[in-house]
Amino acid sequence: MKAICKTKTGPGAEYIETDVPFINKDELLIKIHHASICGSDVPIYGWTGWAPKRIKTPMVFGHELCGEVVEIGQLAKGFAKGDFVSIESHIFCGLCYQCRNDQRHVCVNVRIIGIDCPGGFAEFAAAPARCAWKHTDNSLKQIGSIMEPFGNAVYATLVEDITAKSVLVSGCGPQGLFAAAIAKAGGAKLVIGLETSPFRQKLAKKMGADFVLDPRDKDILDRIKRITRPSDGMDAVLEMSGNPQAIELALKAARYGGRFTAFGIPGKKIKVDYSNEIVFKGLTVRGIVGREIFKTWYKMESILKSRAVDPKPVITHVFKFKHFRKAFEVMSSKNKNCGKIVLVP
Amino acid sequence: MKAICKTKTGPGAEYIETDVPFINKDELLIKIHHASICGSDVPIYGWTGWAPKRIKTPMVFGHELCGEVVEIGQLAKGFAKGDFVSIESHIFCGLCYQCRNDQRHVCVNVRIIGIDCPGGFAEFAAAPARCAWKHTDNSLKQIGSIMEPFGNAVYATLVEDITAKSVLVSGCGPQGLFAAAIAKAGGAKLVIGLETSPFRQKLAKKMGADFVLDPRDKDILDRIKRITRPSDGMDAVLEMSGNPQAIELALKAARYGGRFTAFGIPGKKIKVDYSNEIVFKGLTVRGIVGREIFKTWYKMESILKSRAVDPKPVITHVFKFKHFRKAFEVMSSKNKNCGKIVLVP
Amino acid sequence: MKAICKTKTGPGAEYIETDVPFINKDELLIKIHHASICGSDVPIYGWTGWAPKRIKTPMVFGHELCGEVVEIGQLAKGFAKGDFVSIESHIFCGLCYQCRNDQRHVCVNVRIIGIDCPGGFAEFAAAPARCAWKHTDNSLKQIGSIMEPFGNAVYATLVEDITAKSVLVSGCGPQGLFAAAIAKAGGAKLVIGLETSPFRQKLAKKMGADFVLDPRDKDILDRIKRITRPSDGMDAVLEMSGNPQAIELALKAARYGGRFTAFGIPGKKIKVDYSNEIVFKGLTVRGIVGREIFKTWYKMESILKSRAVDPKPVITHVFKFKHFRKAFEVMSSKNKNCGKIVLVP
Amino acid sequence: MKAICKTKTGPGAEYIETDVPFINKDELLIKIHHASICGSDVPIYGWTGWAPKRIKTPMVFGHELCGEVVEIGQLAKGFAKGDFVSIESHIFCGLCYQCRNDQRHVCVNVRIIGIDCPGGFAEFAAAPARCAWKHTDNSLKQIGSIMEPFGNAVYATLVEDITAKSVLVSGCGPQGLFAAAIAKAGGAKLVIGLETSPFRQKLAKKMGADFVLDPRDKDILDRIKRITRPSDGMDAVLEMSGNPQAIELALKAARYGGRFTAFGIPGKKIKVDYSNEIVFKGLTVRGIVGREIFKTWYKMESILKSRAVDPKPVITHVFKFKHFRKAFEVMSSKNKNCGKIVLVP
Repeated sequence: MKAICKTKTGPGAEYIETDVPFINKDELLIKIHHASICGSDVPIYGWTGWAPKRIKTPMVFGHELCGEVVEIGQLAKGFAKGDFVSIESHIFCGLCYQCRNDQRHVCVNVRIIGIDCPGGFAEFAAAPARCAWKHTDNSLKQIGSIMEPFGNAVYATLVEDITAKSVLVSGCGPQGLFAAAIAKAGGAKLVIGLETSPFRQKLAKKMGADFVLDPRDKDILDRIKRITRPSDGMDAVLEMSGNPQAIELALKAARYGGRFTAFGIPGKKIKVDYSNEIVFKGLTVRGIVGREIFKTWYKMESILKSRAVDPKPVITHVFKFKHFRKAFEVMSSKNKNCGKIVLVP
Repeated sequence: MKAICKTKTGPGAEYIETDVPFINKDELLIKIHHASICGSDVPIYGWTGWAPKRIKTPMVFGHELCGEVVEIGQLAKGFAKGDFVSIESHIFCGLCYQCRNDQRHVCVNVRIIGIDCPGGFAEFAAAPARCAWKHTDNSLKQIGSIMEPFGNAVYATLVEDITAKSVLVSGCGPQGLFAAAIAKAGGAKLVIGLETSPFRQKLAKKMGADFVLDPRDKDILDRIKRITRPSDGMDAVLEMSGNPQAIELALKAARYGGRFTAFGIPGKKIKVDYSNEIVFKGLTVRGIVGREIFKTWYKMESILKSRAVDPKPVITHVFKFKHFRKAFEVMSSKNKNCGKIVLVP
Repeated sequence: MKAICKTKTGPGAEYIETDVPFINKDELLIKIHHASICGSDVPIYGWTGWAPKRIKTPMVFGHELCGEVVEIGQLAKGFAKGDFVSIESHIFCGLCYQCRNDQRHVCVNVRIIGIDCPGGFAEFAAAPARCAWKHTDNSLKQIGSIMEPFGNAVYATLVEDITAKSVLVSGCGPQGLFAAAIAKAGGAKLVIGLETSPFRQKLAKKMGADFVLDPRDKDILDRIKRITRPSDGMDAVLEMSGNPQAIELALKAARYGGRFTAFGIPGKKIKVDYSNEIVFKGLTVRGIVGREIFKTWYKMESILKSRAVDPKPVITHVFKFKHFRKAFEVMSSKNKNCGKIVLVP
Repeated sequence: MKAICKTKTGPGAEYIETDVPFINKDELLIKIHHASICGSDVPIYGWTGWAPKRIKTPMVFGHELCGEVVEIGQLAKGFAKGDFVSIESHIFCGLCYQCRNDQRHVCVNVRIIGIDCPGGFAEFAAAPARCAWKHTDNSLKQIGSIMEPFGNAVYATLVEDITAKSVLVSGCGPQGLFAAAIAKAGGAKLVIGLETSPFRQKLAKKMGADFVLDPRDKDILDRIKRITRPSDGMDAVLEMSGNPQAIELALKAARYGGRFTAFGIPGKKIKVDYSNEIVFKGLTVRGIVGREIFKTWYKMESILKSRAVDPKPVITHVFKFKHFRKAFEVMSSKNKNCGKIVLVP
């Protein structure tokens, strides 16, 4: 089969011919319908940040994937050939303390498909049946690979009740764009997006943000406070960028007694005004990784099926696998003139 | 009357003769029975850190206080002369968004008695009736001034359910000591205290910690993980010290999917491994300031009345007001051979 | 002034000339802009059910009211003449265990305006300042009296997170109609209304219910289960009717592990299949009365100001005070061809 | 092997020789160490209530069991021969909406061991590996069969935070006795037990109840209110008896804004003062069945290992399997002179 593979350490990847994956007894073989690029695929491709420490080459990457079940391990119950599935990328063990306490998304033995084992930028991929989500609605096929990141945003946004609350989305990349739409669908009274890229600012408006502001504006905090009077700050802040300055601003923008979702991932340790912004503010900070398995999946299916959110405007580019270099170029461009990028075989 | 007063800017204080406070219509005049020294009184006394920016001299300080009601403003309902009261030090406005949403402890217009208006290191103090807690049990009189800091610890510890959970108390000063005892009373399966001072280590044992470890031990994280198997880290971490290194260690000690109370107050911004310790860990961080008014007060009355916790061993010294200099000396000593210090008129 | 008054025991009421209320120091005098009729005004008017046991004649009734502040008691802070206010009908004491634990809506000393003291079907009414909600948005003036019942519905619906959940509204009277709209605004994936009156069925559709079914249909439970597959029952049930048969059906319609709001008030004890519908089902039942003061008010202001819900279609009739008999006639009609009825001076 | 079997419909059972169960691939074969009698075994034995509708004879019954793993299906991971296990009696499917939303205890396809398939009153029993709890502490061996009912009580008691709250235990049978001890271990400020049997009243005291009262006392509600002042009723009520009159009393004993666990199982529909006790009281009722799998198991292991509760005094009788008739006699005696009864091979 054809696959996009990190054939060796260092920047870049190859589009190669390789074997169709062998499946274990508890696994499914999936004929990939499409896959999409996550922000965390960029360090893998570029061989920067955490990637050299974790990725073992050769590795077919890509962890946002969907497709048709074409082969079924003998212990993989609940699926039939022809089923269309999206994949939960966190392969949880099911046996650790976290897994047995309904926190499979922070399984201490987690392996991530496309990072720790072969992934979805390929014609075929193997995945455990326990990580497969069977679609019952054909209309979601076209956004099948989007379920993984969309679920991430659903969990980040709805981890605490958002209805009738003011919500700040710091960073309007694909996850921030999803989060803005999810917050609106959940009945947020007001969504403010913070974003520097004009392209993404426009998308944020389209996805439902009531205000989209530039975080570099000098009086940005004053504006946020004026807009949110009388709470004098945001009820809920979703920090989706991972940019240290953005995190600093986002903490300041939260109201006293508010809530803050820590989702974006800074590349190194950051300075935090812990005393003033967390302790004295009585802030609740929720670190969010992955999605609740499968609580979040049910929620997101509801949101998508009921058309409360249409994620399609966030998909700005579709490339063939073989043009993956172009895709990573767009993804890494300075002006960020893209949302989510999809790859098809 | 006699009072301990910051008569002028700079280190130190004076024991002076001054006027008995005038009370407003909604206030009570309280004949002080005793008062105690909070860690935050040290920068006021020493004129360090945040104190010079906030304190306006002359100021009688002290915000942990109790005593007898001797005069009652005409609008101060629910009290009679002779009532014994402890004082909630956070004078909340009652009208802001936070106050009207049951978050009076983070009132945006808060004034703190003994910091923003005259306090309890005096023979008499004035306080709004809405901030007074009337005792119905004489046995609590001797620990009346302890209610304020004890309530702080109750809120910090019980902000999320602690029953059957492993709890780390980082820093066994008076608040950490209270927290250890409260965690045990709340049914924690295991309490580990971290403390460098041998004097306080001993107190932590006395207050119920199952293990008291020195955070400087090289293999401290391994020991914690061994003790907490199979959760591989603490269910709940209470960071009570504010020491930047202690905070770093405490974050590492929390288990995946755990909870972290941010209570101690570092003097400046700190570096945090936000990605690994908060985001990837799926950690919930709860910034805690003050006490829920009066939710926490009812809880602490229950805990104290039922003798689930005896806070008295934490009170290691009692000084007369006039010997306040000695008290602050003990409080600031390097070896930390003290718990809570009480001052009496 | 003119007022609608229960001048004596027995059915009916009189439109009389009476004194403008005297206000206490902590009260406001309000020139009524409009008032509305609650379902619980019907037994007062008809002198049925609980009313004879509680109401002391003569009594001006009506507890959904709004208007302009025309006089201010000297201790009534935070208001100015000309302010437009809606009134929280539950006059809480502020001093009981419930009040001091942020449960003012179940104050054990509660007095209800228009039931225990003179109410809003009059040109003027007195109310404590602590129960007044000041409007800052003129657009809400026309629905000022609706805040009280709307808040009831907001609390009933949003007491637990509703986003992405299936919601059953049992009984589409004014409160059920509000609840349906609030559930949709809060991101419910699906709202089913149960109602027998064709007039109200139509209104339920208008307010956003996805399905409106007749609870008398033989296969009603099967239909609900089919619609809600795979949860095989409703995630959340809002029982707004108080009808014993409706309650029975509503309990059956809840899914295993679901949630049930008990809001409607049956006139006497009812038979409940406690073992099967509550215990074995692992159901959570939330009894709802009043509104959280003022948490719910902030939420409802958000919902109304952001136009997430337009409550106006629920207001089907407006009558002058002097035509109150006609209003109660419409309200008590068999075919229930009405929603909320408003009275104006 | 030997087993206690419902060989045919009608009252009674036989002690017979039968085949050792065959195990499926995902199952374990367990050599029973001991088993205990649940209240719900009584209708099976006596062929009353729900039993004739559900039990298909012949059936080896008993769903509280523990023992040694002696055979392991090839797909049953995580166990070794010689492991000592307790069994979660609810065999959940793992695939339904409830199971995939972390509510396995209300799995809609649940089968209960000893009710829907052969159980633990036998020398050997088969159970799926996913329902087995492996012990790591030998000291818990002697109470291995108690884990199932004890977990029930842990879930019932700790479903909401109990620390510093007043707790009523209505009915001090084995589950009520466990609940009283668990409430104390969780830091309840006060536990009141209601019980008519002097034998069980004494046991309730032993398990930690602060007061044990007779529910038939005329002024019982007044006494409860006096004891719980100022909350004027219990913060939390655990109804463990299922007796209709006891449920009525227990509802009345709950405070305004309190919480009520519905655990005991009345034999038929009951009359409930729904308006006054649930709606107007703002009560939260939590129906409890089974245990959270495995959240509750971790909690109970913590509670038992840390010796916070010693369940042994509740075990009042031990009989050999062959003397099972005597055991059921004691269990059904009018004076209820028993706690939990254990059977051994």
